[in-house]
Formats: sequence, structure tokens, C-alpha cells
Amino acid sequence: MTKEALKIVTIGGGSSYTPELIEGYIKRKDQLPIKDIVLVDIEEGKEKLEIVGEMAKRMVKAAGLDWNVELTLDRKTALKGADFVTTQFRVGLLDARVKDERIPLSHGVLGQETNGAGGMLKAFRTIPVILDIIEDMKEQCPDAWLVNFTNPAGMVTEAAIKVGGWERTVGLCNVPIGHCSSASEKLGIPENELFFKFAGINHFHWHRVWDKTGKERTAELIDILYGPDQNEDNNHLKNIHSASFHYEQIKDLGMLPCGYHRYYYIEDEMLQHSIEEFEKGETRAQVVKETERRLFELYKDPALDYKPEELSQRGGTHYSDAACEIIASIQNDKRTEMVVSTQNNGTITDLPYDSIVEVSGVVTAHGVEPYNWGAFPSGAARGIIQNMKGMEETVIRAAVEGNYGAALQAFTVNPLVPGGTMAKTILDELLYAHKDHLPQFADKIKEIEETQPETVAYVDELMKSNNPALVGNVEN
Amino acid sequence: MTKEALKIVTIGGGSSYTPELIEGYIKRKDQLPIKDIVLVDIEEGKEKLEIVGEMAKRMVKAAGLDWNVELTLDRKTALKGADFVTTQFRVGLLDARVKDERIPLSHGVLGQETNGAGGMLKAFRTIPVILDIIEDMKEQCPDAWLVNFTNPAGMVTEAAIKVGGWERTVGLCNVPIGHCSSASEKLGIPENELFFKFAGINHFHWHRVWDKTGKERTAELIDILYGPDQNEDNNHLKNIHSASFHYEQIKDLGMLPCGYHRYYYIEDEMLQHSIEEFEKGETRAQVVKETERRLFELYKDPALDYKPEELSQRGGTHYSDAACEIIASIQNDKRTEMVVSTQNNGTITDLPYDSIVEVSGVVTAHGVEPYNWGAFPSGAARGIIQNMKGMEETVIRAAVEGNYGAALQAFTVNPLVPGGTMAKTILDELLYAHKDHLPQFADKIKEIEETQPETVAYVDELMKSNNPALVGNVEN
Amino acid sequence: MTKEALKIVTIGGGSSYTPELIEGYIKRKDQLPIKDIVLVDIEEGKEKLEIVGEMAKRMVKAAGLDWNVELTLDRKTALKGADFVTTQFRVGLLDARVKDERIPLSHGVLGQETNGAGGMLKAFRTIPVILDIIEDMKEQCPDAWLVNFTNPAGMVTEAAIKVGGWERTVGLCNVPIGHCSSASEKLGIPENELFFKFAGINHFHWHRVWDKTGKERTAELIDILYGPDQNEDNNHLKNIHSASFHYEQIKDLGMLPCGYHRYYYIEDEMLQHSIEEFEKGETRAQVVKETERRLFELYKDPALDYKPEELSQRGGTHYSDAACEIIASIQNDKRTEMVVSTQNNGTITDLPYDSIVEVSGVVTAHGVEPYNWGAFPSGAARGIIQNMKGMEETVIRAAVEGNYGAALQAFTVNPLVPGGTMAKTILDELLYAHKDHLPQFADKIKEIEETQPETVAYVDELMKSNNPALVGNVEN
Amino acid sequence: MTKEALKIVTIGGGSSYTPELIEGYIKRKDQLPIKDIVLVDIEEGKEKLEIVGEMAKRMVKAAGLDWNVELTLDRKTALKGADFVTTQFRVGLLDARVKDERIPLSHGVLGQETNGAGGMLKAFRTIPVILDIIEDMKEQCPDAWLVNFTNPAGMVTEAAIKVGGWERTVGLCNVPIGHCSSASEKLGIPENELFFKFAGINHFHWHRVWDKTGKERTAELIDILYGPDQNEDNNHLKNIHSASFHYEQIKDLGMLPCGYHRYYYIEDEMLQHSIEEFEKGETRAQVVKETERRLFELYKDPALDYKPEELSQRGGTHYSDAACEIIASIQNDKRTEMVVSTQNNGTITDLPYDSIVEVSGVVTAHGVEPYNWGAFPSGAARGIIQNMKGMEETVIRAAVEGNYGAALQAFTVNPLVPGGTMAKTILDELLYAHKDHLPQFADKIKEIEETQPETVAYVDELMKSNNPALVGNVEN
Repeated sequence: MTKEALKIVTIGGGSSYTPELIEGYIKRKDQLPIKDIVLVDIEEGKEKLEIVGEMAKRMVKAAGLDWNVELTLDRKTALKGADFVTTQFRVGLLDARVKDERIPLSHGVLGQETNGAGGMLKAFRTIPVILDIIEDMKEQCPDAWLVNFTNPAGMVTEAAIKVGGWERTVGLCNVPIGHCSSASEKLGIPENELFFKFAGINHFHWHRVWDKTGKERTAELIDILYGPDQNEDNNHLKNIHSASFHYEQIKDLGMLPCGYHRYYYIEDEMLQHSIEEFEKGETRAQVVKETERRLFELYKDPALDYKPEELSQRGGTHYSDAACEIIASIQNDKRTEMVVSTQNNGTITDLPYDSIVEVSGVVTAHGVEPYNWGAFPSGAARGIIQNMKGMEETVIRAAVEGNYGAALQAFTVNPLVPGGTMAKTILDELLYAHKDHLPQFADKIKEIEETQPETVAYVDELMKSNNPALVGNVEN
Repeated sequence: MTKEALKIVTIGGGSSYTPELIEGYIKRKDQLPIKDIVLVDIEEGKEKLEIVGEMAKRMVKAAGLDWNVELTLDRKTALKGADFVTTQFRVGLLDARVKDERIPLSHGVLGQETNGAGGMLKAFRTIPVILDIIEDMKEQCPDAWLVNFTNPAGMVTEAAIKVGGWERTVGLCNVPIGHCSSASEKLGIPENELFFKFAGINHFHWHRVWDKTGKERTAELIDILYGPDQNEDNNHLKNIHSASFHYEQIKDLGMLPCGYHRYYYIEDEMLQHSIEEFEKGETRAQVVKETERRLFELYKDPALDYKPEELSQRGGTHYSDAACEIIASIQNDKRTEMVVSTQNNGTITDLPYDSIVEVSGVVTAHGVEPYNWGAFPSGAARGIIQNMKGMEETVIRAAVEGNYGAALQAFTVNPLVPGGTMAKTILDELLYAHKDHLPQFADKIKEIEETQPETVAYVDELMKSNNPALVGNVEN
Repeated sequence: MTKEALKIVTIGGGSSYTPELIEGYIKRKDQLPIKDIVLVDIEEGKEKLEIVGEMAKRMVKAAGLDWNVELTLDRKTALKGADFVTTQFRVGLLDARVKDERIPLSHGVLGQETNGAGGMLKAFRTIPVILDIIEDMKEQCPDAWLVNFTNPAGMVTEAAIKVGGWERTVGLCNVPIGHCSSASEKLGIPENELFFKFAGINHFHWHRVWDKTGKERTAELIDILYGPDQNEDNNHLKNIHSASFHYEQIKDLGMLPCGYHRYYYIEDEMLQHSIEEFEKGETRAQVVKETERRLFELYKDPALDYKPEELSQRGGTHYSDAACEIIASIQNDKRTEMVVSTQNNGTITDLPYDSIVEVSGVVTAHGVEPYNWGAFPSGAARGIIQNMKGMEETVIRAAVEGNYGAALQAFTVNPLVPGGTMAKTILDELLYAHKDHLPQFADKIKEIEETQPETVAYVDELMKSNNPALVGNVEN
Repeated sequence: MTKEALKIVTIGGGSSYTPELIEGYIKRKDQLPIKDIVLVDIEEGKEKLEIVGEMAKRMVKAAGLDWNVELTLDRKTALKGADFVTTQFRVGLLDARVKDERIPLSHGVLGQETNGAGGMLKAFRTIPVILDIIEDMKEQCPDAWLVNFTNPAGMVTEAAIKVGGWERTVGLCNVPIGHCSSASEKLGIPENELFFKFAGINHFHWHRVWDKTGKERTAELIDILYGPDQNEDNNHLKNIHSASFHYEQIKDLGMLPCGYHRYYYIEDEMLQHSIEEFEKGETRAQVVKETERRLFELYKDPALDYKPEELSQRGGTHYSDAACEIIASIQNDKRTEMVVSTQNNGTITDLPYDSIVEVSGVVTAHGVEPYNWGAFPSGAARGIIQNMKGMEETVIRAAVEGNYGAALQAFTVNPLVPGGTMAKTILDELLYAHKDHLPQFADKIKEIEETQPETVAYVDELMKSNNPALVGNVEN
């Protein structure tokens, strides 16, 4: 890229993560000749945008920088001439996540807001919006890079590239970052002396690790992390319950799973834990809402001009920093080794050529150059991720077409949703519950309202209890 | 093939299905120049072998044929010079199936003796035996064809070909036959005026149907069978509960599912029904034992010299007739259109080249020539079958190596088994329960016996209740 | 299909092959409820159309049939309501073929009018016309089947399906038919007791043969046809010089080559022979012109009401009969085993999924169902056909876009054209020579005329000599 | 790797390139803790080994290093405990190359000692030797890396990995290095500010170039190098005639060709030039022999202790330096971006998964991590390289099995050899000419000697003329 005066636009700028983003830019001030930072949000997020936006201005000022930080509700105008667009918006705010998690859990089914029932609904709400943003970008900033960290990051990135046609999209996730630092710590070897190779899709990837003598350390790490002698918490993800993988299974796998594999490999334990949270009114969404509330209290302090420690409780930590690094690497052709969601193009031969995958590669000025991965070592790894990808494709198709059959199909094949009648029940309830944010499903939702009074009643009743106060427009 | 004096050997000859096989040969007496029919069984099945064997002799005699029907427990000698070997044995007899189904169900998990927890255990017991048979065949009848209808027919066939190296193996199933006659009946068109194209794997395939004007009738059949107006029982399989598919999902699929897809697409309803059966002591295995008992009572009648009507209650009807048709088609290069388990070789591009798939094709003198299928129409169909194939590969690997890690992996990724801790619990219990028939897992089973007293106690207790009398060596 | 009153339209109806087509329909009168046969040609072919058309009428009448045979120059109107459209036109008539062959040969390079330099030019002229026909068909007969036997049949069929989007296209060639009868004769086994399996692309396919005992006879046929003891002419193709393949190479191949493989496997001998023909003024095109002339003399005889024996000299014999059989098989869902050009869809895994390939299959009412082929047995077979397919794709791209770079690329990679400067020389000369039939290359041709006087002079001079009288609009 | 006292063994140590290798080590002395350098050669190369070996010792001494440089004819002992083995041997010395080039050229056919007729024979001679070396390595240094730059580097590397099973093999070539510096020079941009991406196979690869603003510069480079205005010599390869590519073809290709593509894209011009060289007794082999002779004169000078300028005339310059960089990058996990021959594993989806390809990637301590390439942009590029790979596979098969049919097949499909009878003639002559170095073909060669007197006489006669004095055991 190598522009001389950068304009960076953040959609969902009112998010509690914004200070991390600003901190990331400040850390890279020598690499990023920023002129304008524009934080965009929608009417419902205005108050939060102002709070966090003012704080962003204070941070920039405290760093002695003359960057212009602008706050706006006018997305289209904001995009004019942008060099980078980052997306961290949440359609329907955290309240939507509360529904995504609580409705399935009320039936004893995982909500899982990224790849489970909740994640599929989030995709239904988000994909039309990302496609709208891309339409604006085609007009306003045809050469800009889109750095997406709105979840479900894999499906949203796939929709942006395959449906929207915006090839300059990079999807981001903080999960791999945590696995790298965890491996480094467990092996007692600095991170930059290890070689990590990740492959899979967002929140469903595996990795292998080598040291600088060329020795593969994957098996050793499996032993340390999941072997018979491990007796501590090896999960670095704040937002995932730390149930322990079954050692023999991971050993057979021969690769290190990601934290989210718990939902697939030890689904029953994760479910039980989620149900307990649900019963206490402490689903992850509810907890996050409270964390958010406290963060925004802090942000209001006109004396605060740095990222507060409390933000690291939020769950998505490192996300924004990774986004800043991608921007710096594109801008400067740094060729930083990163793990990103990008076009497969045969990198993983077991997945469709035109899919989006999450893999290791270098970030250059012209985009991501992934390291080739090839085939997975065994049918068990291959098959389960192929099923996940099939589910993702079906979710995108349903989201774009407003296709109820496809939506039901996706719910049926998603391994986190018990097949069949329950899948249909939950899908119908979620569609009704999110009716304000699913215009493409309007006809079907109307039909549900008219012909399934029990669905309407169930959702209305459920939403009454434990319905936390509306908090705002934030991610994760 | 075109031999002039055929020798056909049936392993598991004491099965209740044998009369159907004999009837099939008799029906095709003009196409099959049979000299010897040898029914082989093991010591435990001797009584049944004698009952059904005598009846087979009566049937041949009644047909005025001079075929030599021989009964033996000496498999190796029996195979000498065989032209065709058919396999319908069940390791551990029906009692093993009772365990396969009741142990998972006791935890509220489907047993499903073909592709579920039960089916995986059946594969663990059966694959070493089929490989032994192949070792014998290499010595005794190196040019013979192996026609396998021992379940899980897909995995057993894949092991025979990929592990045993016996390329002259054809796997058989009766499920497609039923779908063809059902389609014919619903459309009011003779079966031979329809063109059926099946693709998938054993007990997990879809099909499309065209009429003789070239019009595809698949969508119409979906409407008739699963549409809003259907109000009757459309399931032609005796052994599968007739819960109804969800119409919108099948419509989105665009292909006709097979009966076993109920376990995946409406898993919850199938599970609920199975649990009810379990609670009444009427799991399918238990019912079949009783059916078997009654059949053998009939077979004992020295006046009975034809296949009794009651056999059609057994569930696997048409299996044996299909086996006879395969033999006749190979013998005479008849090029009969059939649906069989055979080498993929790119027929289904979404599945590994060297896999076994169940597809439509013609049966020639040199083997099966499948019609090309290509890719599945959508990610949802593609992904779920890729996962099933990955599971199958892992089961075979576990069975051949006695690899506990692989076994746990297979249980973890099998969509009919809830992932995680429950998968391990059920696997351990099943291994212990079947210890007499799993020599390759002997070490692991010993470890379970020594270190997991709760597993041992649970299984021992469960096996006490509802444990039906030992019946014999029969299939399905 | 199963229509009750068929309308069959033949584009290039003035071809000398038309009597074979008519004979084919008459032979199948019980299978084909024909009402209308429309023979279409262009102004330049009017005289021949009338001669052969009148003869067609006499043939129909002599057969005692009431079919309506119509002759017209109005293609669009003719297509109205057609059930089948067959194409046997030649853009530029046989004179174009004379140029296709003589210009390359004047430089000592093979013309080869199907896959060589001549064939590529023929594709440039023909593809725009087939796409025009398809545009008419979309309007006039949206459900019709297109049976193409215009060469290069593979590329024309691929353009029709991939570019024109007309999936109901079947491409036809007579080469496989000859190989089947030759194998039958050499082995002394009736053709219907052999199983043939062909795979490749038009004029570049291999085959294997089995007998009805299931024994593969391919190696034996290689020995008979090309082994050390063979001393006779084993080439059944009238239009190809009978140079002998090198036995060791064909043996290593393990499949039977097609006649056209001579151009690739013994290119030097074929070239030498072609140069001799060229020098005598007896290139194939010139000989065919003379044959045509004589045929039309015969056709003029008002007493002739059957296909004359002399037509079998023409080279493309069986083509039209095969076309009739395809029509009959589609009409009656006969499922005749044939070798046709159809969509690959993974049938041959070594070639692109969306390619057109020439393979064995059955012809049903809904189209061709090819037998799966899989991968070729060795890299040598795989690589050379992959190169041919790459060349074909490039020719089609050049033809559709009028893209000179692509045309030069195709000439460069075509194995029958020596790479480089000669490729460019011949391409330029051929473009100029065919300027009346290459509107899409008009700009480039103009540039050649203006800047390459030596090209213009060379072609003008060459065309003066041996330039046979214009004969007409016929195929092959 | 990160060993503390490296032992590096060079097979073919008597090569004229050895000083470049030594210079490369010296330049990287801080990265390479070398203890032993062992130069191995065979009896015939002893004199040259001593000359160049003594010079190597002087170079090391002049650099003030205490490395132990050892010269030996005992390969097996030399390999004991090696960390790196580099191969630069030439079976049959340069005289063999003279035959490889002159025999085909005497028939007007390109010899081309890497991928043409000569290269195939070189592979026949070399592959059995590399497999022998690997057998020794399995015993003597099971963890060593094999860095191969013996030509044909692609086929030799493929044999080492696929047949020999030595996965720690990296193949090297200097061609890409020259293209990078040429692009840098033409664009006026430092090499490290460009991103190069190469893909293909040895001596048959293409590349794309981006600058640090992310802009692709490939098209611009095509214009500069091959466009209408270029009037200078753009070929950086000393050993390849600088005929000019045809601009429109390269533009259509959309990638930059490598120097060796001249043999395929402008074959006629290259052939004409080679015939001129042949007629003057100045084939490349003959010129190189003379260059070698002069180099060894220089090397004899006891005062010379640095790489002489004249070595850069040799043609393979940068080869050895690249080898040193690979060693340093493995040793230090440097992750240097290089272009190497390595396992495909799906990097190029158009080529077999288990092939060896030449691609861009980073060299880590555990081997090469290639950047994913995916599919080629058009059928023309795809097809021609697929054919080359098929040819390579067939050459390897012929070399390993001593299979004459496969050898003839490879000659037939190689685009640099005219198909057919000439292919057989040249193959037979080359086999006979190299009989001392082709033990695997002994039977066939004996047959030729006994039954083809004309072959024997032709070769004997040809070898008499222009037969330069024996020079020694050197590469390229």
C-alpha cells in the first residue's frame, strides 16, 4: 500500500474494543502515517460512540500525535477515500447475543455465538450488513482494504469475498495469538523462536509447532497440555469454559486443537457448563454486558487516556492489536507472519478452492500469502472440518437469499445443534426473536407469527426473564 | 466370469436369510450353472446351520435341481475353488447386537447398529474376520468374487478392498431396492421405466429419479413423500422408525434421502423412539431375536421347502435376492443396473479417490462400472457425508490396528454419538462388553477391567436385565 | 423425450452425409415418430442442398413413409419447435479445409483439420456460428437436443455447453465405432459380447476392452494390432494414413490408442506422408472435394433412392448413423451404450470438472450418463491429454473473444505445431486466408494486411496453385 | 537444525563449482559453525578433485578459518555423521553431456541437457546413483539434509523423495535468482523491495512480481522485456541462446516465463541456433569443456585463494551460493525466501499432490514451507506443465525400472523431441552411446548392439568427430 496519509475507518466504532485499536495504532505510529481515524456507529450506539470516541481522542492527544479522530453516524460519507476499513460492529447489540445464547440453552442446546446456533443467527443478521458496507466501499473507497473482525469472522469474510466480491478482505481472530503465547510459555521458548502452522476455519483450526532446531514439538505440547499429568487450567481463552480434552483422542489427532474445539470434542461438558451459566443468569452474553457496562463507566472518566487493564477481561483481547499489525504489514510490506482468514485457493486441499480458510501466512503489501498446508493427516480431522465448511456455506446461502430451507438445512447439519425437530424449533424461535434485524426472512417470520403461536409465546416469555438492560453496540 | 460349474460359498450360512438366498438361486437357475452350494458357519451356529441347511436342501430338491448343498464348520476347506463367496455372518451373534444397542441407549444415546455407536463396534468385531477370510481366499480361491452383505457393509467392504487388497469385492445393501419400489409406487410408473441414480455411502446415500421422457421427478417425489399433504407412512424399511423428515430441509437438499438419514436429519425423534423401545425391552436387536426364534421354528418343519412369508418381517429382505442378481450379472455379463458398494475412483468427486462408495452402476463380468456422479449439489450434503467418510476411515484404522485413540476419535466425530466424555464412556463400556470378540483391543480392555471398576460394574449390571436368550448366528 | 411427432432439423443439410442420416432414420422408423425433417443450408450451399434434399425425399418415399422433408435457407424459422437439431455444417465449405491443410503443409507442418493447425482455425470459424445457432434455439426451441457432429467436435461441443450454456448438447464422432468393430473382428468375438470403455477427448482418446468372461483383452489387442508379428493394415479410418505405432510404447501405455494418436505418437511419419500428399496436390481436403463431386453426381440421379456404396469412401461413415442412434436413445430412453462428447463432471479426474470429454456411457431420455473413468494409468497418458485440453480451452477462448494472443498461445502449445516463430507465421497466414469467415479477428487481420505484405503475398500465391473448384457445404 | 559443529559433504566435489561453494560458506561463516568439509569424487575425477580441493583449502586458510577440508574417493565413509550432503556430480563427466547434445542435434533435434532428450538420458544415468547415495545416507547419516543441484534437478529431487523416500531433500536451481535480479534491474527497484512468486517445475516455471506498494508489476515487466520496444538482450542465462519470446503470447500468458521456456515457446529458433553450434563443433557441452579446462588451469595456481571471476562464465553461477544459503537457513531457522524444488502437497493444484515442484517459499529449520500457489491462470499454462510433469514421472519410472517402453513413452511425449520414429532412433542411439552408465538398461542395449547395426555404426561414427578431450567430473 505505502500511502503517505492514511485514513482508517472503523465500523462499530462505539465498541468497547476501540481503545485497544487506538493503542495499537499508537504503538505503531512510526509505521502508520495516519491522518484520519473515523469511528462510525449507528443511532442506537451513539452514546457509547461518544464516550469511547472522546477517550480515543484523549489517547491520541496523550501520545502527542496530531491524528484527526472523528465520530459519525454517517457511514457512507465516512468511507470516502478510506485506505483501511475495520469492522467490529454487532447487529442488534449485545442484546441480540443474549437471545442467541439463551434461546438454545433454554432447550438444553448450546448457543455458541460463533459457530453454533447463535453464530448462525449472528451470520444471518451480519452478512446483509457487510454486503451493504461493501456496496458503499465500491463507491467511496474502491482501493481500500477491509479488515474484518466481526464474528462469525470466517463466514462474514467468506460472504465479503465470495458474495460481495471484495477480494481485499482479511478476516481476523485472536484465538491463534493465545495459542502461540501458550505454547511459548509451556515450552519455555520465546515465541519468535518457534514456527507455528495453523490450518482450518475460524474457531475451528488446528496447529503444529516446530522449534528452531527443526524439531516438531506438537506431540510434546499435547502431552504437556492434555496428557495424564496435566493438572492445571490450560485454556487461555477468557470466554471459553476450561473443560479438558480427552488425551488419547488429541494424541490420535496429532495436531493441537483450538480452544473452540472443546465445543465439538467435549461437547457434553461444555453444554453442561453452559446450562449452569444459563440457570444462574450468567450466560457469556450476560456477563459481557456487565463487563461492558463497567468498561464504559471507566471510559467516561475524562482523566483516562490509556487502555484500562480491565479491557483484557473482555474476551476478545489481542483482536484489535492484530488488526493494527495487519494494517501496518500491508502498509509497509512487512511480511509479518500471521494467522488470518483468507482465500483458500488450494492451501488446504480438503476444502473447496474458493472457500475462506484460517491459515498461517505472511501479510504483504498485496495481501496475504498463505503457507501451503495440503491435506489433513487423517480422515477424522478432514471430515469434521469439511462438515463445518458445508454448514458455513449453507448459512451464507441462507443469509443472502433469506432462504428458510437452507437455514433449516444449516441448523440440521451443524454438529452443535441436535438434528431434527429441535433444530427447527430453535431456528423458528430465533428467527422470531430477531425479527427486527432479519429483513430477508420477513415473510417466513410473519408466517411463524401467524401460524405458530406457541413459538411466539415461548420466546416472549423467555425474553422477559433475565433480560439484562440494553448496553450497546459492542463486539464479542 | 462365465464358468460352467459354479461353486458358491456362504460364510454365515446358518443365517435366517439363507432361504432367501436359495430362493434367489433357484429363480435364476437358467443363468447360474450351480454345482456346489456350501454353507459355512462356526461352532456356536452349528444348530442353526443344520436347521436352515436342511431346509435349503429341501428347497433345491423341490425345485428339481441336482445342486450339491453342503454344510460345514471348516471355512478354509469350504473355500477351495469357490467362484463366489457371500458373507452374511455376525460376529458374536445377535447377542452382540443387543449390547451394541442397549449400552448406548442406557445413556440416552442411539445405538444404531450400522453407522452409530453399535455399528462402529460391529466394525471392530467384523473387520478382522473379513480380513482373515480374505487371507484364506488368497490361498483357496484367488479368482473368486466376494459379495459382502455383512454390516456395516460400507466399512467392511472398504476394509476388504483397501486393507485386504481384494478388489473383486462388491458390497450390497437392500435399502436402495426399497426406495426404487417406493418411488415407482408413488409415481404410478413401473420401476423399469424410471432411471434412478444413487450416490453416497452405505446407509447414507441420496438419490434422484427421472422418468422415460427425461423429466426429473425428484422434486415431485419429495413433495409426495415429505410434503405438507403427506399423511401416511412413507418408510419402506421394516427396521427403521417412521418419523417424518422436515419438508423444507429435504426440499433444500434437492435429493431424496435414504431411510437411515432419519438418524441424522431427525435424530431427536429417532432417539426418543429408540429410548421407548429400550425401556420396553424391545430394542430392534431384541425384536429380531424373537423373529429369528420364530423363523427357526418354522424352518425346522421338514415339510417346509419354500421361503416362508414371515422372513419378509426380518428387515433385511431383498438383500439376498440382490446378492443372487449380482452373481448372475457377473456370471453372464448381464450389465444389470444396481446400487452397490464399490471403489470410488472419482465417481463422487467430494469423497476420497480410494474410498468405497455406494452408487448406481452396471454389474459386468469384470465388476461394477459405476455411473459418474460428480459433486453434490450443495455444501450441506457434501459436508455431512465427508464427515461420515472420515468417521468410517477412522473406524477401519482403529479396527485394524486395535488403536484406542483412533476408536475414541471415531466415537468423537460420529454425529450419532454426543461428543466428548459420553463418547469415551460408551466406547469403554462397549469394548469391555465385547471383550471376547475384540482380540486387537485386548490390552486396552484389560486396562479398563483393572482401572475402571465402574465401567465393569455398569456393563455387568446392564447385561443382566433384559438379556434375551442366545439365538444364533444371523445377520441384521 | 418421448414426443409423439418429432421435428428434426439438420444445419448443413446440403452435406453429402445427409443420405446416411436419412437412412439412419428409416432404419429406426419404429423408434422415431418423425413428422418433419428440415434440411437447412446457406446461400452458398443452395445447389447441393437441393440435390441432396431431393434425394432425401426420394429415400423417404421409397421407404413408404409420410415424413415431411423440407429444404430451406432460413435457419431461424426452421428451428421453430424442433425436437432435435443436428449440426453438420462446414463454415467456408471444403475450400476452407483446403487452406487449413495446405498452408501449414507448405511450411512442412501438419494441417490436421481436427486438432492441429487446421482444426484450430476451423474452431475459430465454427464456434461463433454454433453460438449463433444456440441463440436462435433459445428462442425457437428451448427444449431441443443439439446433436453436434461438426468438427472439431470436442471444442465445438465444449463451446456450446460452456459458453453457449446449452447443456442438452451431445457431441459425436465415428472414430470409436470403428475401433469397436476392429476389436471385434481381430478377437473373433461379436461386438455385443465385448465391453468397451473409452476415455479422452475428441480424436484423442484411448480405450480398454473386456470380454464376457470378465477378462481384459486390451493387452492382447495391442499385441495383435501393433505387436512384432502384425503385418497388415490395422487402421480402420479412411482419412488417416496407416503408419504403424511403436509397439513398446503402446504396450507401456496399457490402453489402445485411437487412430488420431498417430499424429502425436508417430508424428514424423504422418507428417512425411502428408507432405507427399501435399506435393502431389492430394491433401485430404483435395481428395474429399473430388469424392464429394462424384457423390453429388450420383445424388443427381432421380432414380437413386438409397445411400450409394460410394459414400462409405467419404471418411466420416457411421457418423450419421450414430447421430440417429443418439436421437432414438433419447427419444425412447433406450440407454444405448455409446461413446460421446459430454460434460466431464469428474468422469475423468485428470481433466477439469467443467470440460467436455469423450467417454463411454449410456444415452438416456435425460441425456448421457457416462461410466466413471477416474485417473489415467500413467503420467505419460495423463500429461499429454491435459496439454491437449489446455490447448482446446485456449482455442475456444481465442474464438469467442477474437483474442490474437490466445490464438498464438494455442498455436504455441499445440503439439502438432512446432513452437514459436513458425506457429506465428502459420497463424497469421491462416487468419488472412480465412478473413471472410473470422469477423471476430477483423482488426488483427487488417493489421496483418497492412503491416505484413509477405504474409499476404505468400498466401495469395499459395492459394493460386492447386486451388480446386468450389464444391460446397459439406462436412469432413 | 542448529548443530554446533557441522559436517558438510559434497558429492562431486571435484566440480569446477566447488570454489563458489567454499566462497559461499566463507561469506556465511558467522552463521555456519563448520567443522568438516568433505569433498567426494570418483576415481575418474581424482585429478580434478585434487586440484580444486587444494584450492578450497587455500580459500579456507586465506579466510583465517580452521575448517577441516578433506578430499576422498570413499563416499560411504565420507557420509558418516554428515549434517548436510550436497550433490553436484555428473555421471559420465562432461563427455556424457557432449553425447546428450550431439546425438539428437545430428538429427536436427534439440539435445537440451536438462528437460530434453539429453536431460532424459542424464536422468537415466543419475537417478540410480542418487538412490545409491540415499541408501548410504540411511546408514551413515540418517538425519542429514540432502541439497541437490545435480541436473535434471527436478527429476533427481523427485526420485530422491518419492522413490528413495528421503524427505529431507531440497532441490536447487540458479535460474530464478537471475530472474529476480533482472526484474530488479529493469524496474529500478532493489530486489528486497519486490515480492516474487515462482511456480512450476525445474527449468519450467513462471513468476509474478509485486512491489512494496502492493502493485503487481508483472505486465509491466513483460512489456519491458518482451514488448515491441525492447531491443536488447534480456536473457540473463549464460547457457541459453537469447532468442526473443513472442510478445502477444507472453502477454496472454500473464506470467513471466523462465529462460528455458524459450525451448518450448520459440523452439524453432532455439533449434536453429543449436544446429549452428553443433555444426561449428560448439555445442554448449563442448564450450563448457573448454571453459572447464581453463578454470582448472587457473585453479592449479597455488597462489589463487579466491573464486576467480572466470567462473561466472560457467553458466551455473549462483547455484552454489544458493546451496549455502539453504544450508544457513536450515541451520539457523532463517526463513529466507527462496525458490526451491520441494514436495508439492497441493501448492500447485494443477500438478499431482506427491510431485516435486519448484516454488517460492521460506526455508526453515524443519524444511521448506512453500507459499501456496493454487491453479494456473489459463489452460495453456496449465496443460503444458502437466505434460512436462507426466514426462518427468515417466522418465523416473524408466530410470528406476530400466523400462524401455517407459523410456520410449517419455521420449514420445517430451515436447522437445519430435514424436515417433525419430524419438525411437535417438533413444536407441543414446542408450547405446551411454552403455557404460546405464546398467539398468543392459539387456535392451545388448539387444540394440545385436540387432541394430545401423544404430551402432551411426553412433560410433558420430562420436569420432568433434570428440573433445575428456575433462572431468563437473556439473552443468
